[in-house]
Amino acid sequence: MNLDAVIPPHVLTIAGSDSGGGAGIQADLKTVSALGCYGSSVITALTAQNTLGVQGVHVVPPEFVTEQLESLFSDDLVPTAIKFGMLAGPPTISALASYLSALATRPFLVLDPVMISTSGHELLAHSARHALMSHLLPLVDLVTPNIPEAGVLLGSGSNPNPKNLGDVVALAKELYPVLNGPALLLKGGHLPVTRSSVEEFIEKNGDVSVVWLTPGPIAVIDDYRATLNLAPRSEDVVVDLLVEDDGMTLVVGPCVDTSSTHGTGCTLSAALASCYALEAEARQVNGDKADKPNGDMKGRKRISHDAVRKAIAYTQTAIATAPKMGRGNGPLNHGHSVAPRVIPTPTIHNPAPFTSHLIANAPDWDAYVKHPFVIALGNGTLPREAFVHYITQDYHYLRHYARAHAAGAARVEDMATIRALSEIALHVARESEMHIEFCASFGISRADLEALPESAASSAYARYVLDMANSGDVLDMLVAVLSCLIGYGEVGLWLKSRVATGETIEDGNPYKRWMDDYAGPDFIGAVRRGIATLEERVVREQPSAAKVQRLSQIFAECTRLERAFWQMGLDQSW
Amino acid sequence: MNLDAVIPPHVLTIAGSDSGGGAGIQADLKTVSALGCYGSSVITALTAQNTLGVQGVHVVPPEFVTEQLESLFSDDLVPTAIKFGMLAGPPTISALASYLSALATRPFLVLDPVMISTSGHELLAHSARHALMSHLLPLVDLVTPNIPEAGVLLGSGSNPNPKNLGDVVALAKELYPVLNGPALLLKGGHLPVTRSSVEEFIEKNGDVSVVWLTPGPIAVIDDYRATLNLAPRSEDVVVDLLVEDDGMTLVVGPCVDTSSTHGTGCTLSAALASCYALEAEARQVNGDKADKPNGDMKGRKRISHDAVRKAIAYTQTAIATAPKMGRGNGPLNHGHSVAPRVIPTPTIHNPAPFTSHLIANAPDWDAYVKHPFVIALGNGTLPREAFVHYITQDYHYLRHYARAHAAGAARVEDMATIRALSEIALHVARESEMHIEFCASFGISRADLEALPESAASSAYARYVLDMANSGDVLDMLVAVLSCLIGYGEVGLWLKSRVATGETIEDGNPYKRWMDDYAGPDFIGAVRRGIATLEERVVREQPSAAKVQRLSQIFAECTRLERAFWQMGLDQSW
Repeated sequence: MNLDAVIPPHVLTIAGSDSGGGAGIQADLKTVSALGCYGSSVITALTAQNTLGVQGVHVVPPEFVTEQLESLFSDDLVPTAIKFGMLAGPPTISALASYLSALATRPFLVLDPVMISTSGHELLAHSARHALMSHLLPLVDLVTPNIPEAGVLLGSGSNPNPKNLGDVVALAKELYPVLNGPALLLKGGHLPVTRSSVEEFIEKNGDVSVVWLTPGPIAVIDDYRATLNLAPRSEDVVVDLLVEDDGMTLVVGPCVDTSSTHGTGCTLSAALASCYALEAEARQVNGDKADKPNGDMKGRKRISHDAVRKAIAYTQTAIATAPKMGRGNGPLNHGHSVAPRVIPTPTIHNPAPFTSHLIANAPDWDAYVKHPFVIALGNGTLPREAFVHYITQDYHYLRHYARAHAAGAARVEDMATIRALSEIALHVARESEMHIEFCASFGISRADLEALPESAASSAYARYVLDMANSGDVLDMLVAVLSCLIGYGEVGLWLKSRVATGETIEDGNPYKRWMDDYAGPDFIGAVRRGIATLEERVVREQPSAAKVQRLSQIFAECTRLERAFWQMGLDQSW
Repeated sequence: MNLDAVIPPHVLTIAGSDSGGGAGIQADLKTVSALGCYGSSVITALTAQNTLGVQGVHVVPPEFVTEQLESLFSDDLVPTAIKFGMLAGPPTISALASYLSALATRPFLVLDPVMISTSGHELLAHSARHALMSHLLPLVDLVTPNIPEAGVLLGSGSNPNPKNLGDVVALAKELYPVLNGPALLLKGGHLPVTRSSVEEFIEKNGDVSVVWLTPGPIAVIDDYRATLNLAPRSEDVVVDLLVEDDGMTLVVGPCVDTSSTHGTGCTLSAALASCYALEAEARQVNGDKADKPNGDMKGRKRISHDAVRKAIAYTQTAIATAPKMGRGNGPLNHGHSVAPRVIPTPTIHNPAPFTSHLIANAPDWDAYVKHPFVIALGNGTLPREAFVHYITQDYHYLRHYARAHAAGAARVEDMATIRALSEIALHVARESEMHIEFCASFGISRADLEALPESAASSAYARYVLDMANSGDVLDMLVAVLSCLIGYGEVGLWLKSRVATGETIEDGNPYKRWMDDYAGPDFIGAVRRGIATLEERVVREQPSAAKVQRLSQIFAECTRLERAFWQMGLDQSW
């Protein structure tokens, strides 16, 4: 297993700060993190802002904007993608353009032309249009205006007032060449249209491609909505238009009726930068450059349609799941794309985090592995009758332990796991033959052994493990058999470690062979493989917090039953 | 099911900005988000900073700090907890103290006395000590200095140089009364000590309580480390001291040997504020105020030891899992506590997100529910022989469908689910009697029905569903049976909706009863309960991305097999 922590793709936001946390660099950092990237920020202006509006602005001196950039790009934390938000004014725009144009290699640049906040505050003077168009846009790979911002970018008092999808498409076609550089994503949120009008448009215009983010009507879900007394599903959709040299793509998403829209534009552009960076990272990891877009004829970096789709879908879900906060336009729910996670990734500092978690959450662990039975076995004072009672019951347990692995093998679909679990079942079956020899050395024949009934403690434990193997999934099964595997390894290694202090006595100890077996390379090798298998599976499956809790319960129950198993030996109880 | 999006606890950070994203408000917002809270920020200063150090500072005018506070507290976004970081200087401290002391109710306040950055930069002049001690500390509930900062807070040129745990405890005891207000968390990261020295100290000082965040040695995990060629587990630990009026608590965590420590103090204090806010929220939801600490005699808000433990554990894991980034002290891994999540919470805008996800990811869904067999059945043109072939095979399918539910019931542990699944098995068994009557009306006797072999399409589908019910967990089983349940509901409702257009014909249609059954209240009621059950379980279990992918595969496979089932009817194939 690779124990190096994965370096996440780095996305920089160059934007204003929103004290309320819903827009600006705050929304950007939340988005970048929720999508699994590393976020940094160059702040161009501070705003005193809440859900009702912008109450104050403090512009950061352009030289200090450059200083912040310098700290990042000085061969220390160089981003893969940059998102531009609120740019404060022409001097800041010039400072940014001059710094970025001098870079030997430029990150992917997406610009959200933030001119007016959701609450109506002018965040960039119209007079800054010239600086933006002439200095910054030529460097940018993608620009994401909404309809009013498209008007500002068109300039000369243009005030587009599209009435339908055809008008918006015309607006996009008019704006795209004026941008003279970046690809254009014209956001249609200001003009919801009906699904059927989109379908009609597509039918008439065969040359546009379409990405549907909202499914067609599903009768059973519409019915389910009705039973919850929800308003009927809206027929309206929002269409974002992606314009590139080789054509136009319509991205059609649901129209959500909500006031929680603060920071929507910030969120989308940060999501676009993140989704680009994630793809670039994946390309690098896979070493594949051929089949995915990463540049076009103008030397622009190109974002894939799949990345655009993911970024828009992320933003839409953030709107649709937003809680009502504040008195005005509330913030989005940036965290919808993540769930609590209990088990961290294995690293060199903690290579077996799942196994460690199970042990730390099993209250009986210490009482199990350092049981008086174990200590007495180690110093040779364990009564022979107690050991014989234990070892004969352990033979029964082994049968069921083999069956548990076979049951696991019966219930997985991949051949590698079928093989691995079958091998363990076979190994346990073989080992039980050695158990029989061992018992013979204590005067117990195979026939005696087979004839003995199971004690309550033995049956309780063995049948519990079997039930987990039969009724749970493969993780349940692996955790149920783990307690015995690693617990006996722990006992073996612990007893050996006490030889030096004289707490474990080997010379003349009738149980030395038992100790040698469980501290020996065969068994400890199985323990190591058991831990590695489980840790790898947990990394692959990332069990949810609820699932980890269930697994912890199984492991804790097994250690409790193991402890009772020793006690049964000590008490010679049935 | 409650469809209101949950409002997360709100945590405000009042601190500096770190352009590199690893410390300051950036680290705070990442921490707050990763712990499931809503983050906002009042910025006191901007730094141009990277992993090597602080290259520049731009102090925000204190009036603008107050403006930012005003935007939040003007009855719009009022935080439950505040974390103070870099405070820039005495004027800022005074502005903050005067604003916060005038509030009618104060949030929980935790102060990280950020004076020197990890890289050695002085972030708050020593001269600010007086302002801090006299104006801000009296308002604060918890203060979190490291050892050097404890020296600065003690004042008068104090330069503590503790050599062992006893010295650190003495330092904490000296500092606590000087603070004259807040509880103290003295961070021991600058002086790792051995585990055995902590154990000795505890033995000698019976009056301290201890929280162990790092387990004692586990032989099998030490052995596993060795097989991975990792350095032996360090015997060193880090001890943080929590001092309150009623005593001292040692929190003992692992000592991680790493250079990724940029923003550790920021992260911990933000985590403390978040864990406090989460508990306060939980108390409010549960309406319980008695059994958890929320105040002490001085009127301070009190943080529970469990919240402290969680915050320290979060920070330690963020250090232990940090990727190597930058050339100096790299940032922590703030996102370790979350995993990607595919299915968002149900809201009024999307009340059945899991069911919708399954349908959207089943390529054969439309071909299944709008199959030529279905259309012909709706307009009455379906050949009688085709229908008879289909309906007789469907009887076999129903038997296995009942068994699948019984298999599910056999493999869950909670009585409510055992009951619910048994009821469905019983309902299907009863419904199959009506199926027999229905077949009789087409001239097929019960004996004919029972004697007919299963067709390949029928057996393939039924046995696949059964295998999922037998080998998977209860979610696998519920998804495997869902395709038939909601698909037939969809067919029923869709055919009915086409009566108006004349595409479905009811008068004289020999299959009208079939259509009535599947669009009828009995069956549609079962569809609604099926969707609700599944959505509720998904909210509870939060399946991981890997699990959702598996479930989507099962559903997609079932729709493919359903489509083949109609085709079998149409082709009258075996």
